[in-house]
Amino acid sequence: MSKMNKQIVLKSRPEGEPTEDNFGVVETPIPTPGDGQILVKVIYMSLDPYMRGRMSAAKSYSASAEIDKPMLGGGVGVVEQSNNNNFAVGDYVVCATGWQSYCLSDGTGVLKIDPDNAPISTGVGVLGMPGLTAYYGLLKIGQPKAGETVVVAAASGAVGSVVGQIAKIKGCRAVGIAGSAEKCAFVVDELGFDACLNYKAPDFKEELAAACPDGIDVYFENVGGDVFEAVLPLFNDDARVPLCGLISQYNATELPTGTNMLPALMRDMLTKRILIQGFIISFHFDLLPQFLKDVGGWITSGELKYREDIVEGIENAPEAFMGLLKGKNFGKLLVRVAEDPTRN
Amino acid sequence: MSKMNKQIVLKSRPEGEPTEDNFGVVETPIPTPGDGQILVKVIYMSLDPYMRGRMSAAKSYSASAEIDKPMLGGGVGVVEQSNNNNFAVGDYVVCATGWQSYCLSDGTGVLKIDPDNAPISTGVGVLGMPGLTAYYGLLKIGQPKAGETVVVAAASGAVGSVVGQIAKIKGCRAVGIAGSAEKCAFVVDELGFDACLNYKAPDFKEELAAACPDGIDVYFENVGGDVFEAVLPLFNDDARVPLCGLISQYNATELPTGTNMLPALMRDMLTKRILIQGFIISFHFDLLPQFLKDVGGWITSGELKYREDIVEGIENAPEAFMGLLKGKNFGKLLVRVAEDPTRN
Repeated sequence: MSKMNKQIVLKSRPEGEPTEDNFGVVETPIPTPGDGQILVKVIYMSLDPYMRGRMSAAKSYSASAEIDKPMLGGGVGVVEQSNNNNFAVGDYVVCATGWQSYCLSDGTGVLKIDPDNAPISTGVGVLGMPGLTAYYGLLKIGQPKAGETVVVAAASGAVGSVVGQIAKIKGCRAVGIAGSAEKCAFVVDELGFDACLNYKAPDFKEELAAACPDGIDVYFENVGGDVFEAVLPLFNDDARVPLCGLISQYNATELPTGTNMLPALMRDMLTKRILIQGFIISFHFDLLPQFLKDVGGWITSGELKYREDIVEGIENAPEAFMGLLKGKNFGKLLVRVAEDPTRN
Repeated sequence: MSKMNKQIVLKSRPEGEPTEDNFGVVETPIPTPGDGQILVKVIYMSLDPYMRGRMSAAKSYSASAEIDKPMLGGGVGVVEQSNNNNFAVGDYVVCATGWQSYCLSDGTGVLKIDPDNAPISTGVGVLGMPGLTAYYGLLKIGQPKAGETVVVAAASGAVGSVVGQIAKIKGCRAVGIAGSAEKCAFVVDELGFDACLNYKAPDFKEELAAACPDGIDVYFENVGGDVFEAVLPLFNDDARVPLCGLISQYNATELPTGTNMLPALMRDMLTKRILIQGFIISFHFDLLPQFLKDVGGWITSGELKYREDIVEGIENAPEAFMGLLKGKNFGKLLVRVAEDPTRN
């Protein structure tokens, strides 16, 4: 086994849905860390919907990937070489690895994780950015009160699954929305939501209304499109909408035509005093210690569960990512790039 | 002059734009106050865009007017008879008068005003609900910081004129939007906004962009429709949108078709971390003392100016109100129902 750095690079920018042609696999020599740098061997690579935005040249909140450079993203790895006093060889870390099997870092933004606390894969999942997104968005923007109804899109996913379980811990009614009967069953039976609706069902709107007999107080939005339009008529006065993603829109090449729903939204926001707040979790890392204490505690106590969908081998990342954008994953999507020495 | 109570009643609910036929004038005997009640002789009646909602049977944040009953609304008057220890004959008050020349009240929600402080008409204008709407929405939701750009729709109106002037007092760039060259000149020359654009101008979008070279940090929304869609592309990261009215939509009978702008709004709200918060000022009367101190002080010091558009005679209220919905008023619209003994 020749030790090379295998990278998934962006070959071209997608128009609409990404295809295999947009990605390339290259092998380069494993880099050597310079002064103050560490070499990280990637074990798990995280695949997240927001990465679709990084394939575009359009200005957004995260930098675009460059053509013929590795796709951008986070991962979990182990320090193999260190010229940085803050990191020792063998340390497990979460950092911006990119889609590759080795990366260099000067330590900025690199978090050490303790494999005795929780499986290291959770560092990019329930105890990482997706979990923090759920925690911040629900508690700081959504401000759920006991007895209120919290509706969660993409309820079996990395973020939504945590949102609904925290809502239950806070005494709310949690209603999920997911893309298959199997996912819905998992959300109710395993995660303990009060209900979960399949947005692909023909009578989805009616089922959602029936599952929210007291209306909707908090809608955690990470989907957009038709799901949002189904939720809109059910909002109660003073409803809050944390908005952290719009997976249904990421592949859109143009705005839809038909009825312009913007005036209806604005009207309801006015008459019902609705709050919508877009947020990007990277601006709220100050909440990390409190988040790790709370969510780490709920995992230990068994109050909060998580599910991972692990794909083997970095060369399968593009296909897994394209499936993620279509909702084909079931749980937090990860790519196992190298053997996890902390498991088994 | 027979002393009767002249009322403007709702004869029928409008479909779209209200017409003369929706209103009727009736005269009834002046009522006699019961135990604990006061009789108020109305001097000024306030006409406000939100009253369009009260003509509809649709559920909204304010109660609907009943057919053959007086239109609902606030006004300024003088106590003519009192069976309530909290009010003396001759007291000037602001209360929910309805569209009529006399009203009864048990004193709930009735505010006494001092004619030596400011003209009593300001009790339903700059020192009343419209002023408080501007104050709360801009300062509590908009949270403007010195150097930021604040854009205000309906900038010569009762609310918008106050928003922009407070923005200037707070060190912001204030850019108004209004419906005529004359209004725009007033907004800049008299009120001191940095710029004001006529939304009816053919190159309004380009002019707005040119007037906001550093983008928009706060957009105070009370118009909706095309104006909002012109503002949308100019939002900066972390922009805030207090939403208190949608005058452009009030007469709409159906949602427009064409491009569905909702996905574009949601995308921008996500990538730019935008906040939109609908609010109804009647839930924020706790702010009244601070508001009266601040805005009263700015009026006394000459830092904050206001303009009134006074229509003579209650029978002219329907026409004035229909004009208000088309932007024909110029300043805070009032109906003088009876002589104001505090003027001249």
